[in-house]
Amino acid sequence: MTKPLPVGATIGILGGGQLGRMLSAAASRLGLKTHIFEPGANPPAADVAHAVTTASYDDHAALTAFGNAVDVITYEFENIPTSALDLLESLAPIHPGRQALATSQDRLTEKNFLQSLGLQTAPFANVENAGDLAKAIAEIGTPAILKTRRMGYDGKGQARIMAPLDADQALADMAGAPAILEGFINFSHEVSIIGARGADGAVACYDPGENVHEDGILRTTTVPANLKPSQRTDAVLLAANILNALDYVGVMGVELFVTPNGLIVNEIAPRVHNSGHWTQNGCTVCQFEQHIRAVAGWPLGSGVRHADVVMENLIGDDMDRLPELAHTDAAIHLYGKADVKPGRKMGHVNRIVTKG
Amino acid sequence: MTKPLPVGATIGILGGGQLGRMLSAAASRLGLKTHIFEPGANPPAADVAHAVTTASYDDHAALTAFGNAVDVITYEFENIPTSALDLLESLAPIHPGRQALATSQDRLTEKNFLQSLGLQTAPFANVENAGDLAKAIAEIGTPAILKTRRMGYDGKGQARIMAPLDADQALADMAGAPAILEGFINFSHEVSIIGARGADGAVACYDPGENVHEDGILRTTTVPANLKPSQRTDAVLLAANILNALDYVGVMGVELFVTPNGLIVNEIAPRVHNSGHWTQNGCTVCQFEQHIRAVAGWPLGSGVRHADVVMENLIGDDMDRLPELAHTDAAIHLYGKADVKPGRKMGHVNRIVTKG
Repeated sequence: MTKPLPVGATIGILGGGQLGRMLSAAASRLGLKTHIFEPGANPPAADVAHAVTTASYDDHAALTAFGNAVDVITYEFENIPTSALDLLESLAPIHPGRQALATSQDRLTEKNFLQSLGLQTAPFANVENAGDLAKAIAEIGTPAILKTRRMGYDGKGQARIMAPLDADQALADMAGAPAILEGFINFSHEVSIIGARGADGAVACYDPGENVHEDGILRTTTVPANLKPSQRTDAVLLAANILNALDYVGVMGVELFVTPNGLIVNEIAPRVHNSGHWTQNGCTVCQFEQHIRAVAGWPLGSGVRHADVVMENLIGDDMDRLPELAHTDAAIHLYGKADVKPGRKMGHVNRIVTKG
Repeated sequence: MTKPLPVGATIGILGGGQLGRMLSAAASRLGLKTHIFEPGANPPAADVAHAVTTASYDDHAALTAFGNAVDVITYEFENIPTSALDLLESLAPIHPGRQALATSQDRLTEKNFLQSLGLQTAPFANVENAGDLAKAIAEIGTPAILKTRRMGYDGKGQARIMAPLDADQALADMAGAPAILEGFINFSHEVSIIGARGADGAVACYDPGENVHEDGILRTTTVPANLKPSQRTDAVLLAANILNALDYVGVMGVELFVTPNGLIVNEIAPRVHNSGHWTQNGCTVCQFEQHIRAVAGWPLGSGVRHADVVMENLIGDDMDRLPELAHTDAAIHLYGKADVKPGRKMGHVNRIVTKG
């Protein structure tokens, strides 16, 4: 059991986007500093970080200085180059650990891992070439979806195969990257569960939220989700199962499809998650602070929900609605991004429904 | 009516203590940057600020550079040297404005102002010398309390006069500073009301909190306060009265004594206030964000209380209780101060009682 980090200690965060920004603000509440490592200039997290290193993930001198300057390392995205992790882990503990990263970085590894725990996933098959794909389509059927094994997010690196005829184009879309074919799931809606596991092995989960996507990007999360009590319990148990199996330390997002045959795991993200942003205004301790508590070796805090919440992402031109939103009772959370781009997450709002 | 500051704009904050720290974290939620001006090295606010200027208030070059780098100026303490304000106000708007500062910087000006609004204060008299003091004691009686007109906080610059015999020592304690004598108030308890006024003139007040002091330092604030509905209304009306009279923009703390003859104003603070820290976990928009919204020209947010809260300050050795507190459901807010000193505010906790 690690000793909790003392007040004034520094948490290194790989990635300086909005998740790093909100992690930094949360760390400040616990008297902890953050140091951001980010290749891009002026990242959103820089506004609220104690220190920022602007360097690429193959800059070993910068990585070494960063690793020596921090007490523990965490990250806001999972696609961190392995060589950087190899170097950093010799300098400071990395939470969540390498096993969680390796599992979630590769859709094939992730699905095999989930099935090894007895959890349901979409039917899937490894696809390395046209022969594999033909065989996979024969086995899984269409419609199906071809996804790169690595580096996919927000619907990128995916191609739908509505009929076997689409196979060639889909494979071309992968641009030679290793891929998996996933069968379509007949689900009624998608929920996600945000779980946390402390360095002491304690597990705490937030209430599941119900997600609506548009164009492959999360649009809203609503709590409580439309779930039967037994499904809610199932969601918590399967999240705990995953967290324990990975000896996980930190917050994890688990996306689930709700089907007549139970909950099917879509994917896991070894970090704070967009579908957990509602916790900032619905709980005493939000997902960002919970993650910081875990990686800092503190006990987990209270994630009890005190209100019903609808979280809505502000994407691209949604920012034009800001003047109007500022006049409502919604809690506004902006990421300080100067340039509005289509599909870019610029902020989110949490609308609260007080209980009782 | 000022135009609202756009995302990415910078708010200059005079003072880098815990209030500046929490203002900075709140500003980040609105996509705004902060720039701290603070004479002391490594101030608490630096951990979450976009920029920090370390310089004294008579460094005109540093003040000029600061004033030119920010879009609006606010402050976390009221005792800012007048010469610095004179220079800064030529460079950027200052909110709350000079009238609020001038009024609250001097206990005599403040009391005259409050009485001019028809509000009750403790009986008081100006004391510049032993003759004034004798006359004031004859008029007001004992027990009474002699206070420096300027620069007093947390019980500093005060001397009790239990009997006329104590007058000489009390006057000596003032060390030649202009002072006022205040009569004792027979009050049952102290409450404070945190009010906000936007650039558009809209006023919003948080529910009054009930304060308990120890050794002249705030120990706890509890909401709801023990007040009759009519007293609660009185508190809101008098706060609005003060805010409007000063053409105020920002958050203000008003300390009130509850007496059989109504509410008596103890003092006003033209800034976010320790007795408003409970709003961080009791409201959608806390006092820090409300202040930022106001000084940035945004509409005020929702200050509706969704829970009963007890705020407890962590002072000096209270930090020894941190490991135990981290295991409770309390929301922890630490200021990142490295050195624990007796009487030093190190952080606070908010304990939530969910309604309904």
